[in-house]
Amino acid sequence: MPELPDVEGFKRELAGNALRKTIARVEVSDARILGKLSARTFASRLRGAKLVAVHRHGKHLMARMDHGGWLTLHFGLSGALQFVPSRAEEPPFTRVRLDFADDGGLAYTNKRMIGRVGLAADAADFIVEEKLGPDALDRLFDFAAFKAAVRGVKRDAKSVLMDQEIIAGIGNIYSDEILFQARINPAARMDRLAPAELRRLFRKMRAVLETSAGLLLPERRKGGRCPRCRSLLKVFKVGGRTAYCCRRCQGC
Amino acid sequence: MPELPDVEGFKRELAGNALRKTIARVEVSDARILGKLSARTFASRLRGAKLVAVHRHGKHLMARMDHGGWLTLHFGLSGALQFVPSRAEEPPFTRVRLDFADDGGLAYTNKRMIGRVGLAADAADFIVEEKLGPDALDRLFDFAAFKAAVRGVKRDAKSVLMDQEIIAGIGNIYSDEILFQARINPAARMDRLAPAELRRLFRKMRAVLETSAGLLLPERRKGGRCPRCRSLLKVFKVGGRTAYCCRRCQGC
Repeated sequence: MPELPDVEGFKRELAGNALRKTIARVEVSDARILGKLSARTFASRLRGAKLVAVHRHGKHLMARMDHGGWLTLHFGLSGALQFVPSRAEEPPFTRVRLDFADDGGLAYTNKRMIGRVGLAADAADFIVEEKLGPDALDRLFDFAAFKAAVRGVKRDAKSVLMDQEIIAGIGNIYSDEILFQARINPAARMDRLAPAELRRLFRKMRAVLETSAGLLLPERRKGGRCPRCRSLLKVFKVGGRTAYCCRRCQGC
Repeated sequence: MPELPDVEGFKRELAGNALRKTIARVEVSDARILGKLSARTFASRLRGAKLVAVHRHGKHLMARMDHGGWLTLHFGLSGALQFVPSRAEEPPFTRVRLDFADDGGLAYTNKRMIGRVGLAADAADFIVEEKLGPDALDRLFDFAAFKAAVRGVKRDAKSVLMDQEIIAGIGNIYSDEILFQARINPAARMDRLAPAELRRLFRKMRAVLETSAGLLLPERRKGGRCPRCRSLLKVFKVGGRTAYCCRRCQGC
């Protein structure tokens, strides 16, 4: 069940393999995933276009097309997105497939068909229409914003964390993990948490989601890149020990 | 290079497989790892004893023996501890081996021989002798204690994090990771960090170490146990969704 960290992974898959490539072929194997949108309209809008940017909001992914408009992807319970290097390959339960002119393609798979692939004129409007609250890892969604978002909500902490209209990105699995890390009873009423508990909840929410999204520093080698901004890591000596550091994120 | 999260793993290996078993045989294949302690003394103290508790402090592991005294383990650059189910098995670079009466044993391996296996009369005294600061994940080592520990230290943040006399448990790898997560330059002077940076540094230190130590909630199934206290997880419905929760840690 893809939640924020999983969708962040799909985002990187798309960003790393599918940007600025001309979409030569669009295949919709099961049009139910498009809802009311016709497969013909969908295909004609994407064919010949390039995806030029990708944005994640909560559990939704949006990719901007070079001639305007956005491809929108929601993963429901069992959806996924993967790059397939050759046309011959077809992952099971592929519902929508975009193949690029220079070979390789993107496969949206979904076993249970809960989820949606679509088109939107504007990403910000789409977020409003979907009634999504702030993304749980948005830089601007700080503790003050979090407090304001959950203030006075007279429901259990688990339901509030999972409510996409309050905070976008957290589902069943990560809500358990966050509450566990924060040592808070999932059934505790959100409006009755002590200030220290609320602060702990916010911190753990960020820490668990960031870490699970793999926003770690794994490329500890010459030429390694920052997992956040993809700039080259700096390698230098500090107090006699080698330090790896992102120039942009850490200002070194 | 074992740091706190790795040693926490060795602790679980020992706690899960080696407690309350009579040590029938002690083998020291390379006595250099014992320093000045003789292999004969070491073996005679352990033979016939049982390990009854295990404690980690920073990168050090200590196991209490039933007839008094502690076995102490330090892993240096390449040390490790693993349970071996049968006597026939011998991991490469095994330097010390304890075999149990009811089969199976513990193997301390160390390729580069930096590290130490020994005996101590008292765990608290041993920590003092080794000049170890507070363990980075000790419950009592809160933000106030962290601030007090690093206050006025006029050295770069990376060296301070790695100084075992100030905070025990962090080495070269995790110091980079923590500073990256906190967006702080490894070369920044610790005493010149802004209050907000210091707070972020502390939070990320906890979050990175806890998560890397695998103090997560992976056993989301009936009969699953809390990774912290090993009590049975409670499974119940909250707002229509299944919640997994530790009775003891989360009070549910």
